Amino acid sequence: MNIPQTNQKRIVIIGSGFAGLTLAQNLKGSAFQIVLLDRNNYHTFQPLLYQVATSGLEPDSVTYPIRKVFQHQKNFFFRIADVASVDTKRKMVVTDHGELSYDYLVMATGAQTNFFGNKRIEDLSMSMKSIREALDLRSLLLQNFEEALMANTEGKKKELMNVVIVGGGPTGVELAGALAELKSYVLPNDYPDLDISQMKIVLVQGAPRLLPNMSEKASAKALEFLQSMGVVVLLNKVVKDYDDHCIFTNDEQIPARTLIWSAGVMGQPVTGVGEINRGNRVEVDEYFQVRGAEDVFSIGDVASMTSEQLPKGHPMMASVACQQGIFLANNLKRIVKGEELKRYEHIDRGSMATVGKNKAVADLPNFKTQGILAWYLWMFVHLFLLVGFRNRVVALIDWAWGYFTYDTGIRLIIRPFKRKVVEPVGNPDKTESVNV
Amino acid sequence: MNIPQTNQKRIVIIGSGFAGLTLAQNLKGSAFQIVLLDRNNYHTFQPLLYQVATSGLEPDSVTYPIRKVFQHQKNFFFRIADVASVDTKRKMVVTDHGELSYDYLVMATGAQTNFFGNKRIEDLSMSMKSIREALDLRSLLLQNFEEALMANTEGKKKELMNVVIVGGGPTGVELAGALAELKSYVLPNDYPDLDISQMKIVLVQGAPRLLPNMSEKASAKALEFLQSMGVVVLLNKVVKDYDDHCIFTNDEQIPARTLIWSAGVMGQPVTGVGEINRGNRVEVDEYFQVRGAEDVFSIGDVASMTSEQLPKGHPMMASVACQQGIFLANNLKRIVKGEELKRYEHIDRGSMATVGKNKAVADLPNFKTQGILAWYLWMFVHLFLLVGFRNRVVALIDWAWGYFTYDTGIRLIIRPFKRKVVEPVGNPDKTESVNV
Repeated sequence: MNIPQTNQKRIVIIGSGFAGLTLAQNLKGSAFQIVLLDRNNYHTFQPLLYQVATSGLEPDSVTYPIRKVFQHQKNFFFRIADVASVDTKRKMVVTDHGELSYDYLVMATGAQTNFFGNKRIEDLSMSMKSIREALDLRSLLLQNFEEALMANTEGKKKELMNVVIVGGGPTGVELAGALAELKSYVLPNDYPDLDISQMKIVLVQGAPRLLPNMSEKASAKALEFLQSMGVVVLLNKVVKDYDDHCIFTNDEQIPARTLIWSAGVMGQPVTGVGEINRGNRVEVDEYFQVRGAEDVFSIGDVASMTSEQLPKGHPMMASVACQQGIFLANNLKRIVKGEELKRYEHIDRGSMATVGKNKAVADLPNFKTQGILAWYLWMFVHLFLLVGFRNRVVALIDWAWGYFTYDTGIRLIIRPFKRKVVEPVGNPDKTESVNV
Repeated sequence: MNIPQTNQKRIVIIGSGFAGLTLAQNLKGSAFQIVLLDRNNYHTFQPLLYQVATSGLEPDSVTYPIRKVFQHQKNFFFRIADVASVDTKRKMVVTDHGELSYDYLVMATGAQTNFFGNKRIEDLSMSMKSIREALDLRSLLLQNFEEALMANTEGKKKELMNVVIVGGGPTGVELAGALAELKSYVLPNDYPDLDISQMKIVLVQGAPRLLPNMSEKASAKALEFLQSMGVVVLLNKVVKDYDDHCIFTNDEQIPARTLIWSAGVMGQPVTGVGEINRGNRVEVDEYFQVRGAEDVFSIGDVASMTSEQLPKGHPMMASVACQQGIFLANNLKRIVKGEELKRYEHIDRGSMATVGKNKAVADLPNFKTQGILAWYLWMFVHLFLLVGFRNRVVALIDWAWGYFTYDTGIRLIIRPFKRKVVEPVGNPDKTESVNV
């Protein structure tokens, strides 16, 4: 990979999620050469993907072009690349665009959906870890309603309208809530010739309560909110199989053409780096150094810093990833200065989930709240994190009124275009000598 | 197709472009049952697709969900359907979702790209008649720049950065202008390690002047604007072939990995309707009745009302299509009232094209102008037409500040999702009897 070799130490960061992006941003002005690698040319604001899937937001509101983030940043290089493996002995990253040497490597490759080995569910269910998956889900939901208009039996209509969500974590809860609001406020107007009241939104949770990582109070309130919005919540139920028409739990069948899988995530580490634990995450020490790999660090969802208090490592959350990115940036700067590295001390900033308008739950370090106050908190936090996107929304308005802001933000390769291959005519090598 | 049979006369409209959509909107409150058919669930604002392709606008700014337009409209039915043919004797429309009878049929199926039989150019070039094509082009342009970073020869870099546009009509001119502004204001910031000055934007026009359907003055000014923005404009040149690396005109070769074809359009009539002329458009009389097909009308780009003054029919433009939609709606209402049909008298509202900020050309019935005034006119006209979209942009802001407007506008099937087919388990027919 042709990145200029300078006398600066090179840090290669794999992944531009919350962890990798925050790290790169906080290394601005440092003595390092920074190379950021990602499969896409944009950062995805994963916590809001469920809104794209439910037609609430356009892709450009939850994605952000990486190059725009780092405009005018010196000694910074971004490349779209797929990392195949890492050779820690030779200190080389192996990508689909050749090899790249590193002085320090940071693996921030995040998480992927865990189907627990059920291949059929993996093939037939929808998940929501990427903007493409969220758009696929948006399309499928709408296509099913269009198809329902053409269906000639009530059974087929129900099957097409029903949506089953597996997994009672934040994603499942927020998605169920958004779908319930679609059902109440949008679909009846869009489909007057369908009996939307027949549509069932079912949330299946294996555990005895929703939002298991939050307080009992939050779980109870989230359940209450969802039920008040007409969502059927099934607790202590496990989805065993799906045949594209019917979901099979341990003891019942639910007809639905849409199965959304948000029941599990696992790390997606790069081959050849460190020790991988049960959650498919890589073990790191309290400096985020990968055990057994020199000068290799890992942060975010893919990293697991276990301790007696945290046998499973830190929660896989955006806020945690950002906190770790900032911390590691400072430690890396200490390396240059020859200072001693600091131990990571995690600050629990709490967690929240929103179910619908004025309906959210928040567990904060100092207090817990549910309902409208929690919803405003959720709003505030997300607006804060979304500042980059808000700028772009404003730019969009600027456009509507003033036509053209020169730096438009939507430079995203959301659906890579595949060109066909044909027999060449003429002589492509000659193209140098053309006078245009 | 299961549309309820009532005692109302049924008008089937094929196509929800400017012509079909305007017609359906203006038939609101009439004594007809209206059935609108389209391949997509949204209307596309085609004149602004070039802005999607150049990362200026998100898809939701130039598309609009059809169901949202017709919410609460009585006796109106929309269906996503692909019309295979029309049996004018049996008065039946044959679709991929079965047959549909009509009392009156309106074909408003619009235009398609005309490659004049050059299959290789059709396979390898990009065109911009749909939102999908515009998004493909956006992706390709960005992918090429990412690839250029990896290229190891100057020739390959140039090939990847260069863009050749064929066709000097409004689309070609506006696209060339937008690309020139990208090159000047966006790409150098996004790709500091590429020499963007090496990028060539070439506009190839077969005729002796740009915008042949506009005044000499407009053509001259458009050429001046584009050249001042660094676009290479080749007049009297015809593109003969393309091998995916090099464009071959009658007398030169231009290296480029992106060839955009906006050199021709032709109608896309439905099989079995009327007489098709050279432009692949269907012949209509001055009532928009299709010659030789009873109770069948056609408006918009696909319809051709020829006369001595207009041997080629009316120009294929959005404003013309809207004018015809309104006119036909009124004539159809006259049929119910038993009144005599009116002859269509076309009002030339003029035409305009924008090249860049403060750079546009406008030929209006009463006066012609170029530059900043024309640009403000263009702005005004498009803002006027865009009112539906502006509402949605405002809704997006509402979201950013207030989180959730209940009626979100982005209900678009932009990329239909294809589900995999697998062997079923259990018994799908049983799904009726499920207790959820």
